[in-house]
Amino acid sequence: MTDETEDEARHRAKMAKRKAVQDAEVASKTIAEKGLLIVHTGPGKGKSTAAFGLVMRALGHGWTVGVVQFIKGAWDTGERHALDRFGEQVRWHSMGEGFTWETQDRARDVAAATRAFDKARELMADPAIRLLVLDELNIALRYDYLPLAEVIETLKARRPDLTVVVTGRNAKPELIEAADTVTEMTLVKHHFAAGVKAQQGIEF
Amino acid sequence: MTDETEDEARHRAKMAKRKAVQDAEVASKTIAEKGLLIVHTGPGKGKSTAAFGLVMRALGHGWTVGVVQFIKGAWDTGERHALDRFGEQVRWHSMGEGFTWETQDRARDVAAATRAFDKARELMADPAIRLLVLDELNIALRYDYLPLAEVIETLKARRPDLTVVVTGRNAKPELIEAADTVTEMTLVKHHFAAGVKAQQGIEF
Repeated sequence: MTDETEDEARHRAKMAKRKAVQDAEVASKTIAEKGLLIVHTGPGKGKSTAAFGLVMRALGHGWTVGVVQFIKGAWDTGERHALDRFGEQVRWHSMGEGFTWETQDRARDVAAATRAFDKARELMADPAIRLLVLDELNIALRYDYLPLAEVIETLKARRPDLTVVVTGRNAKPELIEAADTVTEMTLVKHHFAAGVKAQQGIEF
Repeated sequence: MTDETEDEARHRAKMAKRKAVQDAEVASKTIAEKGLLIVHTGPGKGKSTAAFGLVMRALGHGWTVGVVQFIKGAWDTGERHALDRFGEQVRWHSMGEGFTWETQDRARDVAAATRAFDKARELMADPAIRLLVLDELNIALRYDYLPLAEVIETLKARRPDLTVVVTGRNAKPELIEAADTVTEMTLVKHHFAAGVKAQQGIEF
């Protein structure tokens, strides 16, 4: 056996393994028959953007989609304009105007969060909706603006064909436990770059 | 000072800090004047979906967007249908048909990756395009199907108003160093849930 043949065999084995991983990833992207509870958390970017990507994919499949924004401003005008192309397929509710980092009034925040979650319940009860995004709900839970146990029970009791996506930093452990899929978005640029610089400091 | 007032002061201070973080996040979501090099990597979900979200947002802003898929199948039909709504605003090229985990033929893979990157260069040279997604380019780099240094030089030499998003697991350190923003998507569900179960094992 020549070196080249060994290399080829190694490459073949590695690629067969890679194919299995890739097939699994592609399979996981198929829209599920069973509705999932999905959480996007962590300090990095992409939590709301990936949820928005899921919304656009679902719209592309012809689904009706609900979005409740617990904080105003997390989705920008470009996202709104893209959603506008889908007209009645999108039920959009921006409920977070009154939150404390704007108003610094806790009672008002609790009321705003409660209204937003009431809207979420209403959308969950609408059989036309197959995907519901509760954008930045984690913030309302983090500050105890909503009763955690009740929220989780409500999410768990969703219709079997409804997928719910919850976004925001600092997802509660109880929510993570209830979820089917949790992705943490971490910003790696800075500490990694610092490591590279240190190496250069050694080398030069 | 009553307890309630102290609580209120603490809440106020915490919320002022939270507002600063939130304002910074919202500001960071504004489409940049300067084109960025953005990398989505890590083993978790959401890498391509968040890129797709950026595409839809850019389309909503009226931009023309390019997408080169280095692996077939990473974006599904729902995503394609959503993009179809934007007609000529989207330049879509799926180039990854010949990759090794399908064909197990390295020479063919190198040729496919080279064709895909040639297409990327062509789109980078088109002044109409403001956002370019190189989906799963990291895979082609990981297996040395493309010359890393040349790819990075090409990405760094992009027009100042062009944002490029590179996705895929196992981003090369050199790419991370060259990037403006790097997000790692990590699947946290399983090990976190295991931790919760261990705690329950102690408690019950």
